[in-house]
Amino acid sequence: MRGKRRYDLIIEGGILLSMVEDQEPIRDARVLISGDTIKEVGNRHTGRRPEAKETINAEGTIIVPGLINSHAHSPMTIFRGLADDLPLKRWLFDHIFPAETKYMQPDTVYWASLLACAEMIASGTTTVVDGYFLANEVVKAVHTAGMRALVAQGVIDFPAPGVPDPTKNIDVALGFIERWKGFSDLITPGLFCHSPLTCSEETLRNSWKISQRFGVPLQIHLSETKEEVMEIAQRTGSRPAFYLDDLGILQSGLIAAHAIHLNREEIGLVAERGVKVAHCPESSMKLATGIAAVDIMLKKGITVGLGTDGCASNNNLDLLAEMDAAAKLGKYANLDPTALDAHTVLVMATRGGAELMGIEDAVGTIEVGKKADIVIVDAGAPHMIPLYHPFSQIVYSATGGDVRDVIVNGTILYRDRQFTALDVDAVKGQVRRIARMIRPD
Amino acid sequence: MRGKRRYDLIIEGGILLSMVEDQEPIRDARVLISGDTIKEVGNRHTGRRPEAKETINAEGTIIVPGLINSHAHSPMTIFRGLADDLPLKRWLFDHIFPAETKYMQPDTVYWASLLACAEMIASGTTTVVDGYFLANEVVKAVHTAGMRALVAQGVIDFPAPGVPDPTKNIDVALGFIERWKGFSDLITPGLFCHSPLTCSEETLRNSWKISQRFGVPLQIHLSETKEEVMEIAQRTGSRPAFYLDDLGILQSGLIAAHAIHLNREEIGLVAERGVKVAHCPESSMKLATGIAAVDIMLKKGITVGLGTDGCASNNNLDLLAEMDAAAKLGKYANLDPTALDAHTVLVMATRGGAELMGIEDAVGTIEVGKKADIVIVDAGAPHMIPLYHPFSQIVYSATGGDVRDVIVNGTILYRDRQFTALDVDAVKGQVRRIARMIRPD
Repeated sequence: MRGKRRYDLIIEGGILLSMVEDQEPIRDARVLISGDTIKEVGNRHTGRRPEAKETINAEGTIIVPGLINSHAHSPMTIFRGLADDLPLKRWLFDHIFPAETKYMQPDTVYWASLLACAEMIASGTTTVVDGYFLANEVVKAVHTAGMRALVAQGVIDFPAPGVPDPTKNIDVALGFIERWKGFSDLITPGLFCHSPLTCSEETLRNSWKISQRFGVPLQIHLSETKEEVMEIAQRTGSRPAFYLDDLGILQSGLIAAHAIHLNREEIGLVAERGVKVAHCPESSMKLATGIAAVDIMLKKGITVGLGTDGCASNNNLDLLAEMDAAAKLGKYANLDPTALDAHTVLVMATRGGAELMGIEDAVGTIEVGKKADIVIVDAGAPHMIPLYHPFSQIVYSATGGDVRDVIVNGTILYRDRQFTALDVDAVKGQVRRIARMIRPD
Repeated sequence: MRGKRRYDLIIEGGILLSMVEDQEPIRDARVLISGDTIKEVGNRHTGRRPEAKETINAEGTIIVPGLINSHAHSPMTIFRGLADDLPLKRWLFDHIFPAETKYMQPDTVYWASLLACAEMIASGTTTVVDGYFLANEVVKAVHTAGMRALVAQGVIDFPAPGVPDPTKNIDVALGFIERWKGFSDLITPGLFCHSPLTCSEETLRNSWKISQRFGVPLQIHLSETKEEVMEIAQRTGSRPAFYLDDLGILQSGLIAAHAIHLNREEIGLVAERGVKVAHCPESSMKLATGIAAVDIMLKKGITVGLGTDGCASNNNLDLLAEMDAAAKLGKYANLDPTALDAHTVLVMATRGGAELMGIEDAVGTIEVGKKADIVIVDAGAPHMIPLYHPFSQIVYSATGGDVRDVIVNGTILYRDRQFTALDVDAVKGQVRRIARMIRPD
């Protein structure tokens, strides 16, 4: 009495880049989805055409796994373009920190994060690794938007938004994880230590302990600037990676953002310990902090994800543009046009991000049994023609504006360049209201 | 008996960046256009609202001068993504040169150039400095598209598309200029010497003579790679800029593309001679050729325009993305986040390009008496919000996909993201037809 299997969603047509290792692009693809899960991936002309409640015609598109932004500070969209082209310290101390102190209220964090989610979804990002203060509001925004995320509460031994008394930072962090653990299948709460320079040994150790207790990754900014490396070396007698290793937290649950000024020994140690790295090429160019040796890290077997960093240092959250920058900068930095090829950077932005988060069994590729996080990129604009190699096209030709449809966990969030549920005009209006307080016209 | 003045086109609303030196952004702007010319630029609430045949509502947008692509090889869109991530010599000799020999027929050049025009218009470029072979077809394509251009016929002492016998290269070049000189107000024919390495002294001198006779700029690839610099030094005893100076062609009519490996003396000489430089940051990153010292050049008073280079080494013609790359790479290369600020790179992509071409009296800014080459950038997408500083937003947040309307010489070529006259589907179809010959699916 078994009837014909009825799926919830069929995607058919287009060239599918599953990002499963060694798998070739699938032309005239078909993806079958039931609930939140991918049930079949193949060619559309295989077997009888199954029925589904909904069908997405993907002819003329390239289908990729949902992109994963491995390092972001979503609420910082509120500072987009507020203070550019400034020396790093003036940027931070005269502009970003004062603005954070004054304007980063829960209301700001919520709406700015929701704007970030809208921007990420519209440019093909389905998952974000976020770290900021007042992270309760980030969770609410990510949940409203329907994205997948590791949302981390910031930990720093200075007064911070929502944590005016730094002696309470660990309590707040613990409360955050306890509040959101188990709240949603899509959202993992975590902690984000600002840096080995701004967090004490005790703070770092306690943050690690809590992360381990709840089985969640710990994020940290590692060796973003040379100055920071020197200060830590002077204070502790060790370079940052060795210092963290001495504290016992240089382990596989650690996500190190930037990781620019690591020497060879530190890269070797990071590889040995299984630490994951979030590479943020556009931010590091814009702030002139340096360039992470990503090619060497990959050769050493380090898992590397791709991140945009916060909007104030980028100034967008467009991972398609970030892939282009990663590939090109990698070539320039190595004086080698074969370095960081298109396939490698697309791995970073998909499978790499999933491995960095430790959710590679759930997402990062388009294959049977995984959650349906899928992005459909329109390949019809003049800049996408002709199409010889889909990896090249995605990395070097496309930008976020080419994204047409976005599916997270089987739910269509964005279709034909429109949000299916999110009231994006309301979000823009709220962000503009807050921005007018920060800088009246 | 003078009646109320009737204009052809009013643009009203939006923030206008005129790019006139020292002029602040104009909010609630109004631009009045008659025929091909800008008649008034100001605030929309000034005086009585004039009448016009057509009105563009630019509320919620940023209005900039039409962008100028200072170095492109338009026909190379046909090779977009054909051979990426390869060593430079293998890329050129195993892929690009053979494909050029085999497939660069007039038909290919025409349709691939028209695709390039469509791409450029849709991403806000109104003027292109182009250099390639079979340039008759490039002129036809640019003319069909309605763009402004310096279209140059390539000159090289090797067999080239349309010029199988290199001893005829100067005759062909001369014929090209004679054919198109005076053909259109929008199109200037010119010559493009491939490089000091691939053109003999005689070829260089003759190309310069013809350019001078017709009063048009001469383009050349200058010091793109280190190897090239060494070869020229070995052959001539001089570094390339000094060699060209010895030949008498390092003068203000020369446009030097790339100009990456110039030493300090050469930069000084280029400045002294009034040579213009076309900076192509994305191409130089992708090919790992090096980075031009643009900040030093600007300080020395050299006119620098911004170019995408050909599609095969970019892989798009999006000047908004190129500005972002130029600004960020400039910061990284100088280890200084204040280097190449947003305003500076927008000058390069507008006024700089106009000065490079020698048409700064006609275009490059939005001001009374200039030709109406104007681009209207939608500032409404999530990644464009909030809006504190329009220069930052254009350079760091926008991409070509945000361009909404494009006007060249008073004619609307692109409106609400649609081409007003160009049959872009036909162009795509023709390019796909040719691409299938180059690489069958």
